[in-house]
Amino acid sequence: MRVVLEEESLRDGLQAESRLFSLTEKLQVVRLLVDAGIKRLQLGSFVNPRSVPQMANSDVLVSLARKEFPDLLCTGLVLNEKGLERAVRCGLGHISMSVSVSDSHSRRNVGQPAAKALELMTGLIGVAAAAGLGVRAGVQCAFGCVYEGAVAEEAVLEAVAQMVAAGAGAINLADTTGMAYPLQVKSLVARVHEAFPEVELSLHLHDTRGLGLMNMVAGFEAGVRLFDVAAGGLGGCPCVPGAVGNVASEDAVNMFHGMGIETGIDLAALCRVVDYYETLLERKLSGRMNRVLHALPTGNGRLGI
Amino acid sequence: MRVVLEEESLRDGLQAESRLFSLTEKLQVVRLLVDAGIKRLQLGSFVNPRSVPQMANSDVLVSLARKEFPDLLCTGLVLNEKGLERAVRCGLGHISMSVSVSDSHSRRNVGQPAAKALELMTGLIGVAAAAGLGVRAGVQCAFGCVYEGAVAEEAVLEAVAQMVAAGAGAINLADTTGMAYPLQVKSLVARVHEAFPEVELSLHLHDTRGLGLMNMVAGFEAGVRLFDVAAGGLGGCPCVPGAVGNVASEDAVNMFHGMGIETGIDLAALCRVVDYYETLLERKLSGRMNRVLHALPTGNGRLGI
Repeated sequence: MRVVLEEESLRDGLQAESRLFSLTEKLQVVRLLVDAGIKRLQLGSFVNPRSVPQMANSDVLVSLARKEFPDLLCTGLVLNEKGLERAVRCGLGHISMSVSVSDSHSRRNVGQPAAKALELMTGLIGVAAAAGLGVRAGVQCAFGCVYEGAVAEEAVLEAVAQMVAAGAGAINLADTTGMAYPLQVKSLVARVHEAFPEVELSLHLHDTRGLGLMNMVAGFEAGVRLFDVAAGGLGGCPCVPGAVGNVASEDAVNMFHGMGIETGIDLAALCRVVDYYETLLERKLSGRMNRVLHALPTGNGRLGI
Repeated sequence: MRVVLEEESLRDGLQAESRLFSLTEKLQVVRLLVDAGIKRLQLGSFVNPRSVPQMANSDVLVSLARKEFPDLLCTGLVLNEKGLERAVRCGLGHISMSVSVSDSHSRRNVGQPAAKALELMTGLIGVAAAAGLGVRAGVQCAFGCVYEGAVAEEAVLEAVAQMVAAGAGAINLADTTGMAYPLQVKSLVARVHEAFPEVELSLHLHDTRGLGLMNMVAGFEAGVRLFDVAAGGLGGCPCVPGAVGNVASEDAVNMFHGMGIETGIDLAALCRVVDYYETLLERKLSGRMNRVLHALPTGNGRLGI
């Protein structure tokens, strides 16, 4: 058995950091990730550089990464028409889009209620799909919202239906506020699979309450084979109180390997990315396996697994 | 449905900290824990105060806590005859004992090979049981050892058999190095339950690789209803490289409540213990829910669950 991990740290991770990473530093991260076996990579987002200066060099990074690693599946986050133009201009073949099903979160994140944001997004999906781009459409707060509480599965299914109808070939369900529970993940995944069997479904899980890995296993058991991760557990939506990052890539790799599920990723090599991030950010990140690897007598992290 | 959480932070947590907690501070922790609904509490260990000065005030703490909270189930860790004498002298009715099934870990931890440590322990269990004490016997490294790798289930079952034969009425399986996987937890728990149906079985899970909560759910599914936890995720064996602490009490409470399983513990009150530890230790602890509670708009931590 096998899963694919899409590395998000350069986008979801670095957008949450106050330190601005240079193009050289980001390119070094890409190289280390590719060395470790990462095959899918979200490189940045095409948003207003005045609002999110951390992502200002996304266009050039995409161009350089595509040139150096032609086989890497590169993607970037697009939230509006201007962003779509930029993504096309730097040659991206795949993009991610995303809206929240929670009104409160949507207003805080993009200044629009959820229905309006979804309407704009489906229009944009149509344009992108017509232009031949692969579009992955994401549903934020799919498992609950820290402001609104429970989110109805029907609301998620309705958003997914509109996104698929508009041309999205892939759907990503995001637990933006880290509120999902395993049974809930299984239930929603089953319903999306049933309603849209042709769609590639992936999960984007935050570890806010320590349940990220558990929810990942629940998603795997429900048939999901593509998961977003971020090296070191970087990330966290700036408008989610108490948010912590994505499931740490290295912890996901360790967990899947421990259960005999291949990822194609070398754990020790992946931890060199975490080392690099920790050096530049001057702090220890929340992922566990880098610390374990450094402390282990053998240093290979798989002893006894 | 209901589980019982035994709070270990005063023992497994504070023995790993360089800061020495005063009697007054420890007693304040006890009060906050009792306020939160904790009913079982490991207060300290009766070991050589020159080796483990953090535990030097365990005797007096036990006496004071028993006097102030006569209904609290107090326990302490005993590793030798002298410790047993001290536990009896301060009036403990329940004690915990523990040996490792890994030779390498046992030699590092207590300076003896596993078989020798088990022999001494069973002798001590016999003395304690004959004296009318409730004895919980623990198996360290029951799910693997960072030095030796995999640990055979048979080795664990054999140790448990000897402990039960010697008079232990309760058995604790410890994932000392955080190497357990959910299926492994289910398998070993099932075998111990089958072989010793009359024994109260509990789990002591470390979160070294981020799988602590997941393994706790696996244990619950296999029928375990008693789990060790430590507020803030404190803890970590000093002779396990890269060790991190127990499953954080507050994260376990949040998880069980989210699945409709009662703990009898008030999450917000429990987090006041974490606040207190963080103030005294002057750092943020690894447990997630205290941070979530402080950040949440409602502050009750159960919004939307």
